[in-house]
Amino acid sequence: MSQLSEETASGGTGATGPGTTGAGAFAADVMNGGADDPTATDAGVDAFDVFSRDCPSRVALEHITGRWGGLTLSALADDPLRFNALRRRVDGVSEKMLSQTLQALERDGLVIREAQPVNPPHVEYRLSPLGRQAAARLRDLIALVEEQMPEVLAARGRYDEGRGAGWQRGQK
Amino acid sequence: MSQLSEETASGGTGATGPGTTGAGAFAADVMNGGADDPTATDAGVDAFDVFSRDCPSRVALEHITGRWGGLTLSALADDPLRFNALRRRVDGVSEKMLSQTLQALERDGLVIREAQPVNPPHVEYRLSPLGRQAAARLRDLIALVEEQMPEVLAARGRYDEGRGAGWQRGQK
Repeated sequence: MSQLSEETASGGTGATGPGTTGAGAFAADVMNGGADDPTATDAGVDAFDVFSRDCPSRVALEHITGRWGGLTLSALADDPLRFNALRRRVDGVSEKMLSQTLQALERDGLVIREAQPVNPPHVEYRLSPLGRQAAARLRDLIALVEEQMPEVLAARGRYDEGRGAGWQRGQK
Repeated sequence: MSQLSEETASGGTGATGPGTTGAGAFAADVMNGGADDPTATDAGVDAFDVFSRDCPSRVALEHITGRWGGLTLSALADDPLRFNALRRRVDGVSEKMLSQTLQALERDGLVIREAQPVNPPHVEYRLSPLGRQAAARLRDLIALVEEQMPEVLAARGRYDEGRGAGWQRGQK
């Protein structure tokens, strides 16, 4: 289980959070908790369950759906991009966040970093086959959200009107 | 544009963050920034673009794909659930986070909170038709991640071996 070694655990924690505070603590959970089970049993698909807090699939899902991870994968779905072009496309991402996001996605095998041995260096990021599958599903979801935003905005309006001053009451 | 009124802006900020610090600041951006454009122009689908930092669709996408939002929607895809059953299903979510997540999803018109007028009170959460569409796409993505976790773990192993002590170098 070299992928969950002590060194990896600390390295992985550093690269975990595309914009989400607390992801580090979560990754630490995975390392210290039940993360052994799915890989140790050498079982198939059923071994992984994002609903289980200690399953490494939850962290992978967070890399894919995180604030910057989702946009980054979607942005790369059309063509490979260099860092700065990607940063312009994912409007609002900081250099540091994009760098961490790409690192996490590369480590998970979703993005491939391709450095061509030329001078000056030319580095491109592109999707792996798995990254393309994930990006296709993300884009389905993004298309739905963009299409249905008028409905979402209307729902927000109804919700806020209905709640008035009581909007912030607790809900269970 | 009642849905972007001053009152809504502050209320919305409070309920924005299912587990992501900084979502509040982001929502404030939307309120102060270019959020007027898409609704003011009364344009169609093309007006919304999650890649644009000020587009309200980005916040809606974050509610759907956020750490707890995605799991909550997916958990409700099968059956309506009461708060405590939902909390057990979404392993690891705090009461406060689940409450905020449900509030954000209800406000966006994805989840319906149904309080039956009985004693003791019986409250269930279920998906709206739009919520079902989003949940179906999320579950496609989750299924892919769970299925491909062996490949993800293998990629992590290769990445960490290849990098060794140089793992934390900057990447661009």
